[in-house]
Amino acid sequence: MSAKFIVSIDLGGTNLRIALINLQYRIVRKQVMSTRNFSTKDKLTLAICAAIKNIIEAHNLRNKDILGVGLGLPGPIDVKRGLVHFLPNIPGWRKVYLKNKLEKMTGLSVFLDNDAKLMSLAEHRLGAARGFRNALCLTLGTGVGAGIIIEGELYRGRDNASAEIGHLPINEDGPKCNCGGTACLETYIGNNSIINKARKAFGPDVSLEELSRLAKHGSAKACAIWLNVAKHLGTALVGAVNLLNPECIVIGGGIAGAGKILFSRVREIISRQAMSVQAKGIKVLKAKLGNDAGLVGAAIMVKEGIS
Amino acid sequence: MSAKFIVSIDLGGTNLRIALINLQYRIVRKQVMSTRNFSTKDKLTLAICAAIKNIIEAHNLRNKDILGVGLGLPGPIDVKRGLVHFLPNIPGWRKVYLKNKLEKMTGLSVFLDNDAKLMSLAEHRLGAARGFRNALCLTLGTGVGAGIIIEGELYRGRDNASAEIGHLPINEDGPKCNCGGTACLETYIGNNSIINKARKAFGPDVSLEELSRLAKHGSAKACAIWLNVAKHLGTALVGAVNLLNPECIVIGGGIAGAGKILFSRVREIISRQAMSVQAKGIKVLKAKLGNDAGLVGAAIMVKEGIS
Repeated sequence: MSAKFIVSIDLGGTNLRIALINLQYRIVRKQVMSTRNFSTKDKLTLAICAAIKNIIEAHNLRNKDILGVGLGLPGPIDVKRGLVHFLPNIPGWRKVYLKNKLEKMTGLSVFLDNDAKLMSLAEHRLGAARGFRNALCLTLGTGVGAGIIIEGELYRGRDNASAEIGHLPINEDGPKCNCGGTACLETYIGNNSIINKARKAFGPDVSLEELSRLAKHGSAKACAIWLNVAKHLGTALVGAVNLLNPECIVIGGGIAGAGKILFSRVREIISRQAMSVQAKGIKVLKAKLGNDAGLVGAAIMVKEGIS
Repeated sequence: MSAKFIVSIDLGGTNLRIALINLQYRIVRKQVMSTRNFSTKDKLTLAICAAIKNIIEAHNLRNKDILGVGLGLPGPIDVKRGLVHFLPNIPGWRKVYLKNKLEKMTGLSVFLDNDAKLMSLAEHRLGAARGFRNALCLTLGTGVGAGIIIEGELYRGRDNASAEIGHLPINEDGPKCNCGGTACLETYIGNNSIINKARKAFGPDVSLEELSRLAKHGSAKACAIWLNVAKHLGTALVGAVNLLNPECIVIGGGIAGAGKILFSRVREIISRQAMSVQAKGIKVLKAKLGNDAGLVGAAIMVKEGIS
């Protein structure tokens, strides 16, 4: 193949990140813009096309140098049909055949997938889950996303809507979730829930980073908040470990920044409460690829999908 | 191949069932004996060998007519090494290399697996889950067993210990489970738990069948018990649906005899509480193969493993 680059896009509720990535998965150019500047679906679609064109031209390339475009989106995606079912945090997106639309507008091959799935793919191919056959990779942020690797491949399920561990109920009764569920993990450990607890303890200006720092410096109140997060997360992971019997669990996203206090307690809960065979030797690892995981995963999807 | 039959064995805490099955998976001869007559691991192993020999000879066959022996056991099994890790309900079994032992004693090829996995395999190949690519099959009895079918194949996980939905926590705090976990589904809906509730309502002699019959005839107290079972089971299945995004869920075992009251409420809970894409069109089906599912599954394992 003569094409030497992939354009990767990570569309979030806040930012649209776009990168030019070579076939060894090294990011050679990266841009970030605010998603919120584009008030409608059509304006955002046009902005995506313009950004693709710009990043290609800025590197003095032409379409023939581009193997394809990989796009990660924060919602359920029908990969085969290139269809965005809806985006919970970006209004106006419902039943959008985005693959077709972008291919017509750009003249390039376009691949779509859910962003958490792409991050998991990246962590499996190049990050913390590398070399494990069965893995569960989580991204903890405003939402709790995840991907399941089964026998070395991303497991999609009937609708490519598998791995929604953020919507595993951890109690029979509890807070209502936006998804329609009850007591979903995400209602307990989504960023907003943690920040609300942190604000009650430390005032309105505290951030997640600050909360992590406070815990590392021994603040009992900050530690209590993180241990509580670990209890909720641990309960869900005990269920996932007993159900999936994976080799490893990879945890990334902002909350993973809490580090040792969170990871040790989660490991302790799994070791104590999951079944003995499943819990023995399971690795609970911090994600390696950070904020670029989604972009790298999108490039892997394009390269593996085409080659 | 000249061999025309398979010997299947379903070893339970109460009964040992053995069958001669032809290569079209029809049971041509079946025997049941009490597991509890054999007080030690070695006595039970000898009894299994004798039963294999007997059923072959009773049909006027010789070893060369037997493709292999398939054995389902109620506990975690290392399929590749033919190793029984332990059997929670049969004392004295720990780290037993049963495949090797039985092959030496019988001169036949022997395959082992967990009983719930074999029932799931049977329901997928020949029963209610036939034709579905991704399925979760449950057997509700004293224990809550299950198997996961992924892309048409039994999913095993790292240790062949996947699919333990009976040990999915459905609450963060709750009853302690024998497995070491907290608030495992099985502690709420294992037969013993349901029978205890039924006895409080209907006296010491009530059986599960009677409880089902009472509910079908409109007893409010019996219905309340089954709706409660449905709530616990539904909560776990909402998690499994969001995590696995299967095409169907198959429910078998004694509790499935409760029928409509249980199935309708479980469907309602999934439809209301699971995520919209995953819940839409999912089938919740009653298992088709009944008590023979384990025997048939063991035969499928042998035939698919050898051919």
